[in-house]
Amino acid sequence: MTGSADLAGCEWLQYDYSPALMSRGQPGSFTMWRYRKLLPIPDDPVRYPVPVGGTPLLPAPALRQELGAPQLWIKDETRNPSASNKDRATALVIEDGLRRGVDTITTASTGNAAVATAYGAAAAGIRAVLFVSTDCRPDKLALMTQAGAQVFQVRDGYAAAVELSRAAARTFGWLDRNTGANPFTIEAKKTVAFEVWEQLERRVPDVMIVPVGDGPTLVALDKGFAELVGCGLATHQPRLIGVQAERCQPLVRAWLGTPAGPAELNPAATIADGIAVVRPAIGDAVLDVVSRGGGEMVAVTEDALLNAVATLACRAGVGAEPAGAAALAGLKTAFERGLADPLETVVLLVTGREVKAGGATDRLGRVAVVEGLDEVERALADPIPSS
Amino acid sequence: MTGSADLAGCEWLQYDYSPALMSRGQPGSFTMWRYRKLLPIPDDPVRYPVPVGGTPLLPAPALRQELGAPQLWIKDETRNPSASNKDRATALVIEDGLRRGVDTITTASTGNAAVATAYGAAAAGIRAVLFVSTDCRPDKLALMTQAGAQVFQVRDGYAAAVELSRAAARTFGWLDRNTGANPFTIEAKKTVAFEVWEQLERRVPDVMIVPVGDGPTLVALDKGFAELVGCGLATHQPRLIGVQAERCQPLVRAWLGTPAGPAELNPAATIADGIAVVRPAIGDAVLDVVSRGGGEMVAVTEDALLNAVATLACRAGVGAEPAGAAALAGLKTAFERGLADPLETVVLLVTGREVKAGGATDRLGRVAVVEGLDEVERALADPIPSS
Repeated sequence: MTGSADLAGCEWLQYDYSPALMSRGQPGSFTMWRYRKLLPIPDDPVRYPVPVGGTPLLPAPALRQELGAPQLWIKDETRNPSASNKDRATALVIEDGLRRGVDTITTASTGNAAVATAYGAAAAGIRAVLFVSTDCRPDKLALMTQAGAQVFQVRDGYAAAVELSRAAARTFGWLDRNTGANPFTIEAKKTVAFEVWEQLERRVPDVMIVPVGDGPTLVALDKGFAELVGCGLATHQPRLIGVQAERCQPLVRAWLGTPAGPAELNPAATIADGIAVVRPAIGDAVLDVVSRGGGEMVAVTEDALLNAVATLACRAGVGAEPAGAAALAGLKTAFERGLADPLETVVLLVTGREVKAGGATDRLGRVAVVEGLDEVERALADPIPSS
Repeated sequence: MTGSADLAGCEWLQYDYSPALMSRGQPGSFTMWRYRKLLPIPDDPVRYPVPVGGTPLLPAPALRQELGAPQLWIKDETRNPSASNKDRATALVIEDGLRRGVDTITTASTGNAAVATAYGAAAAGIRAVLFVSTDCRPDKLALMTQAGAQVFQVRDGYAAAVELSRAAARTFGWLDRNTGANPFTIEAKKTVAFEVWEQLERRVPDVMIVPVGDGPTLVALDKGFAELVGCGLATHQPRLIGVQAERCQPLVRAWLGTPAGPAELNPAATIADGIAVVRPAIGDAVLDVVSRGGGEMVAVTEDALLNAVATLACRAGVGAEPAGAAALAGLKTAFERGLADPLETVVLLVTGREVKAGGATDRLGRVAVVEGLDEVERALADPIPSS
């Protein structure tokens, strides 16, 4: 800077202008496609039109100080296009579909995966048909319909929604983005492990703490780190600590080998709706990889989840929804129980934040309640089914 | 990909693992600091701990097709940390403060700038003291307080909030992030012009369409493009089209030279709260740069704003708040009035989306209503003032 001038009352800083002041070379593009040699797509140009992944690994100085954990990092997946890590899976499934000419994608979801699918399909110019439980939150429904998705609410809950979505995919030839059904969702989410490794200057952390609902986020991390070992680029994997809400903790109970009571399998009772899954799609795989890697499964209270949200916001400047903040709640438990040491390199995976549908959100014209595939077919034949 | 295996019931794709499968070199870091030779900070390491800027320029294929505009682009500023372009100004003001050892930042705001300041201050470990009108929306207040900010509501509205924030900055030696007060806000926001130019392969667009409230976003774009010309890297600047809501359009009326009626200066009446400013801080500068660049000012209806939000979501997969989507509403007006040609290279600046405070949002313990500086001082002496 060399001086300042006045422009219509506005102070205007000045420099010694020359081409040398501008950056050289192309701006870096740090996205999940950087790892395409380890993704199941050919090496030609990517069709998916929105950058996904390449999210920051934040040092969070104030949080480090508060916790006395100088090597703590936050992998901030809220910086993805629909503000959650679900965007990675959506992008890879749609990329594959664009190459094969499939024009519809379907998934069942507790919320975020459906929102990510709605926005991803809109960006790519294909149709999204989403199946959610009738107790899916209205603000998440509004996001889906605003992005032009057809949403079906299923009275029998999330598990029934998954079955119906998968049956529709088989019957109508749609892309099946359901967690546990399509291995591409794991492939996409494993890129988080590659990014963390690169962002730590090609080292793996000691511990990574991860919210667990259906399981793919954690299982995919394990696969990513295993592939780094397989490539000869790392010698070991981090310990993975999976976190569930105390009020919906099927995998923590299975891990401990003690039966879960009804109060521990109550998805409606926790604010962590994004990980509140009674029958996790790939729960066995979660238990398997956590066990093999010397990790652990922990449950956290509602208060701990709320505190984690507030602490991430005011100590790290990271906005997260309760499920997205679960890793921080789990970290405190891990420190208390000696599962992690404050001097270790620990990465918290913050999986998502909540966004709002802009403007009026009460025009849910494309939501229908269904029970079977025949109703789905009838509703799709009618361009605007009644809600 | 070379095969697949089964892991505890989960399909597991496999590759011929070798180091050659992994990307080479450091992942690119595309942030606003890339342009630091044109920013008023020294060339040593950046202190601000969160990446800002480097937002995508999206081709939006479905939107291009719908509008018959094959060279239309969306500069998606919703991908910043607090989901708006305000994060750029916050980052540069705080970066400067960290270098000078200032531990408090203040701003007045209609909402987004205060939210960005709250999150940015939390990330950097400094205090935010924010001044808003008493009619600031509760959900935006919740975001500010969740990030640990001290918020003062000012009964006499936004203009009075600006005066009080600036007086507090002078009196207490705080960083003054107020729009129009600190030239660093313009410096930060001009990096959008540099990014667009680089993302268009070192070309300037023909037209750039921009929501206008106080004015810095548009004025900063003009400065950025002017500096590219000044550096000898571009031969001309794009035409800038500023967009305001019909119900709060002081600068459109001033541009047309016709007096604004009360219905055209009613910020509470428009859903575009982010640009609803009755007395724009640097309005003269806006009119000056738009005029010099052959641009235009246009007003858009509430329906056009709502439609723009929905169209961005379902045709481009971009979530925006009404003020953030105003550029698309303005584009339609510009096409209708022949201010832009569909075959030109047109960039829409989507300035922000709304995020939600996670978890409980009713604990607004740090909000106080004030009228003067003495009340501010008393409230700050009391760690948790009553609301």
